[in-house]
Amino acid sequence: MKKLKRSERLVDMTQYLLSKPHTLIPLTTFAERYGAAKSSISEDLAIIKDVFEDEGLGELQTLAGAAGGVRYTPKLSHERALAFVQELCGKLQQSDRILPGGYLYMSDLLGQPSLMNEAGKLIATAYADREIDVVMTVETKGIPLAYATAAQLNLPVVLVRRDHQVTEGSAVSINYVSGSHKSIHTMSLSRRALRERSRVLIVDDFMKAGGTIQGMVDLLAEFNAEVAGVGVLVESGAVGSQERLLQDYVSLACLTDVDPRTKMITVQRGNYFKE
Amino acid sequence: MKKLKRSERLVDMTQYLLSKPHTLIPLTTFAERYGAAKSSISEDLAIIKDVFEDEGLGELQTLAGAAGGVRYTPKLSHERALAFVQELCGKLQQSDRILPGGYLYMSDLLGQPSLMNEAGKLIATAYADREIDVVMTVETKGIPLAYATAAQLNLPVVLVRRDHQVTEGSAVSINYVSGSHKSIHTMSLSRRALRERSRVLIVDDFMKAGGTIQGMVDLLAEFNAEVAGVGVLVESGAVGSQERLLQDYVSLACLTDVDPRTKMITVQRGNYFKE
Repeated sequence: MKKLKRSERLVDMTQYLLSKPHTLIPLTTFAERYGAAKSSISEDLAIIKDVFEDEGLGELQTLAGAAGGVRYTPKLSHERALAFVQELCGKLQQSDRILPGGYLYMSDLLGQPSLMNEAGKLIATAYADREIDVVMTVETKGIPLAYATAAQLNLPVVLVRRDHQVTEGSAVSINYVSGSHKSIHTMSLSRRALRERSRVLIVDDFMKAGGTIQGMVDLLAEFNAEVAGVGVLVESGAVGSQERLLQDYVSLACLTDVDPRTKMITVQRGNYFKE
Repeated sequence: MKKLKRSERLVDMTQYLLSKPHTLIPLTTFAERYGAAKSSISEDLAIIKDVFEDEGLGELQTLAGAAGGVRYTPKLSHERALAFVQELCGKLQQSDRILPGGYLYMSDLLGQPSLMNEAGKLIATAYADREIDVVMTVETKGIPLAYATAAQLNLPVVLVRRDHQVTEGSAVSINYVSGSHKSIHTMSLSRRALRERSRVLIVDDFMKAGGTIQGMVDLLAEFNAEVAGVGVLVESGAVGSQERLLQDYVSLACLTDVDPRTKMITVQRGNYFKE
């Protein structure tokens, strides 16, 4: 790369750091990339750090020493998180979302990559300091949120299937009871998808009693893996806390009431803001 | 926002532009955001434009006039695209991917958000100048690539389901013939997911004879929507071009041979590079 001026370096370093979250980048990488002294790179990083913090985008940590470098940790500020969740709740409350049976149509929201990416940043913020090896979800609707979260945490995604697919190789299957309907389902995970003793962040779009997520927890036990956390976009507040199979999770929004008669949907902020 | 210096503006404008691809941003937005003159903003944009072009990240177009502004169009340079596809082909050729029946295990690659994002940038580059309203895929494995592509093009994703789900509302279902096995399957799309006359980019992870994608094309006809393009991560080269149901598509890699006996997998660059 040709030698860059400070103004050009700042542009390139910004895009480089944003594209590599949760990754330690040695200062020499930048020094060589731009043909600049490490002291100049440090000054550049100080400018970027200030802007990222002022904008509520996250932290830039500089680690000194031979094994040192800089790491960008995306962390949305409380202010940005709140603005996003207010907007999300407003959209979830649109009365034309009510489907027969009191279900809520959310596919239009789940289909917006920018919205999923922002929601993923929130879950990644909640678990930014936790030691995690992999993000897990079960098909289908939680997939975009799982990838958005994993991208921010720089982690791979492991996808649990409802059926055993020929393209997955040998797999471990379990039966689980859907908490709200008490019906029995199957989920299956490729044997080579997950290493033993992995620390796993479970992500899904919706949680009612938590049966599906409990199924994933049980599946993890088959792999001698552990749950490092659970993040959901929307939880149903219609479930009493005794009834809920899972107590330790982060939700962005909470669906407290759906009235098909009056077409009123009530959505509140999730427990993300309770800590 | 407080008044920023040029160096700080460059950092913030870079992250702002990267987070809003294919979006026209009026210069006044930046001028007000930073309390700076439009002439200063124009100078900043010229610096960012040069770095983005040198780095092969895409184009920054400035449109003059009252309705003017700046638009970032992600376009990976040929050099970056080539480097990525070489890496992808290398990974696909790892011999331990062969599954019984000559299938290829790809879930580990599909589970890497950074790899999917880069692949999505390539497909978005191929279709950057096409008029498109929405990206479509069918569950399950094409979902990450579809979202990665849609994020770069600033478009929503429409997800076709294998079964009609209660959370989708009323839906249109069709039967389609899987080209390689001649077996009959069903796919279904929520009526409210797609507007009439939408221009649709179809994205999937793998294409053999193209039966699944032809199914999506047929489904689009039911919505009076049109195909604006087709992008796949891997196509199978084992299919003759007469046998292939679809001629107009972009592939990143081409699987030309899988030999379960010698455990040899041969993967070449896709037709992305043929134009």
